Amino acid sequence: MKALRKDPIKHILWKKDRLVVLDQRLLPRTVRYATCRTAADVAKATRDMVLRGAPLIGCAAAYGMALAARGNRLSDVFKAEPILRRARPTAVNLMHALDHMLEVARAGSQSTLSKRMSAAAVQYCADDLSFNAAMAELGSALLKKRSRVITHCNAGALATAGIGTAVGMIRAGWLHGKIEHVYPCETRPYLQGARLTLWELMQAKIPATLITDNSAAHLMKTSRIDAVIVGSDRIAANGDVCNKIGTYALAILAKHHRIPFYVVAPSTTVDLRTAHGDQIPIEERSADEVVTVCGWPIAPKGAKARHFGFDVTPHALVTAIVTEKGVVSPVNGVNLRKNLCSR
Amino acid sequence: MKALRKDPIKHILWKKDRLVVLDQRLLPRTVRYATCRTAADVAKATRDMVLRGAPLIGCAAAYGMALAARGNRLSDVFKAEPILRRARPTAVNLMHALDHMLEVARAGSQSTLSKRMSAAAVQYCADDLSFNAAMAELGSALLKKRSRVITHCNAGALATAGIGTAVGMIRAGWLHGKIEHVYPCETRPYLQGARLTLWELMQAKIPATLITDNSAAHLMKTSRIDAVIVGSDRIAANGDVCNKIGTYALAILAKHHRIPFYVVAPSTTVDLRTAHGDQIPIEERSADEVVTVCGWPIAPKGAKARHFGFDVTPHALVTAIVTEKGVVSPVNGVNLRKNLCSR
Repeated sequence: MKALRKDPIKHILWKKDRLVVLDQRLLPRTVRYATCRTAADVAKATRDMVLRGAPLIGCAAAYGMALAARGNRLSDVFKAEPILRRARPTAVNLMHALDHMLEVARAGSQSTLSKRMSAAAVQYCADDLSFNAAMAELGSALLKKRSRVITHCNAGALATAGIGTAVGMIRAGWLHGKIEHVYPCETRPYLQGARLTLWELMQAKIPATLITDNSAAHLMKTSRIDAVIVGSDRIAANGDVCNKIGTYALAILAKHHRIPFYVVAPSTTVDLRTAHGDQIPIEERSADEVVTVCGWPIAPKGAKARHFGFDVTPHALVTAIVTEKGVVSPVNGVNLRKNLCSR
Repeated sequence: MKALRKDPIKHILWKKDRLVVLDQRLLPRTVRYATCRTAADVAKATRDMVLRGAPLIGCAAAYGMALAARGNRLSDVFKAEPILRRARPTAVNLMHALDHMLEVARAGSQSTLSKRMSAAAVQYCADDLSFNAAMAELGSALLKKRSRVITHCNAGALATAGIGTAVGMIRAGWLHGKIEHVYPCETRPYLQGARLTLWELMQAKIPATLITDNSAAHLMKTSRIDAVIVGSDRIAANGDVCNKIGTYALAILAKHHRIPFYVVAPSTTVDLRTAHGDQIPIEERSADEVVTVCGWPIAPKGAKARHFGFDVTPHALVTAIVTEKGVVSPVNGVNLRKNLCSR
């Protein structure tokens, strides 16, 4: 479907001498763009969560490398690469994009460096967009008619270069009459579900009702919920899924209520170098982001807090992983590798 | 222990012609008191969550009835009673306190009504305080040394007339060397864990670290958590436990990780007229309380949200219920009834 093959939101704009990105921290109240002129600017925007979402972090990093290549000096690219790599630790798409762009940088003469890197970054994002469309169709086929689904965080257009991963599947499902209602969990502390996913769903006119993270179990028990659909920041070789904090809890709750739990992520999210989930570095961010909401203090002065950015869901709790290459189910290392090797 | 037998926080003050209550909505940033001169004032303060916590709602209702009796007219008491009863639907302590005060009202002459009602309300709160102390000791005995525990919402001094139910058990545990660390879940949307429980724990100098509700599962998997301890707003005759939204999820997560799940609540919270949890009316509050945090909008304009105040945890997920009369374990209707009938 044509609607699945375009980016519904202008949030990452390549201007050759600069990258313009929508500041997602201010959404949905304020639409403001930030300009990155250097790879360091892109790294800072990534670290500060001006942009977020594993696939989008990869796309931005590719453009960051293209910016570093503008002077046609390979040494600039080599200098930029570790700065970008350190921006955030968990999403492996960042590492994947950087590895790919390094390869491109090395595979040609220095005089064409900038041109090649720019073209490669544009292609990297175009690929992500196609992946989204393919996953959306594959995922939608798993849903029964008029499904009521829960999603978490934002695995939507804002997190990718296309229509989104989990939200892409929901968008395709909506077009095919498979979606009746969506319940995004608000996703504390950054509230990506409340601020971003709900915003995307409302713009797409898909019926959606916000719930607090702690309401999902009650809704599963007292209402009809047909599926939980989430994205991922890194999938280990055995199929363990790292995603936004709260995902693991949802997977346990889904299992308890016998509700299918789907993970939608492009093959760039699979990290075969990580054997299992416990080896994935879980970013721990500032406690300030927990004890304040939109800058507003919600805890006593001097309060201690822990802010885990992500958690790991063991593969046994995942009903299926949907990549652009197909559906992995049951989820295990053998099936995941088979999926990656298919065309 | 003496420390367990007094109310550590001045939050409900009986002045005979008025009831002065700490406005818990403003904590911990602002300490401000509200004055209730009539039963209707008490009902409004309860409805608006100036005061909250099942046992405290019961105590306040008892004082509300005493205020209604000030003119020594039984008819005033009969008029006040349904106004108070409608204030909030879920916590059965409210109904229990009103039933008790109606009995007191009827059991004597009209000329002594005010005096009797005032004395009965004072005694009702004194009883709650004693219940807290008894539960704290009984509950603490269940903990192993140096436990690291998760609690939810505020089942502390602020929710009772004494040291609290779940937090009372934690306080006693701390005095006995049974508590190493407490993780209160922030408890969206009202953030009672962040604003109230953490505040109480910090004042008592008990080591505590705030977590978002969606972090509990990750903490259970990656860290040592020895128990989950919560209060209750109503316990059905079969042992099903109604408590703040998010409790049911914690119980499932605790079971998945083989962590004991304790409920601490006075016998006034048990409602033998409710056969099982599905019959408990779950208050659904305004969506505004979800789409804003401290008045700050966190979702798009026009966003729909659902705000369940409570959920029900089936008794099979509860390791033990601690009342002032003893420990109920395994939790079932027969054992619960035995507990209530014991001295």
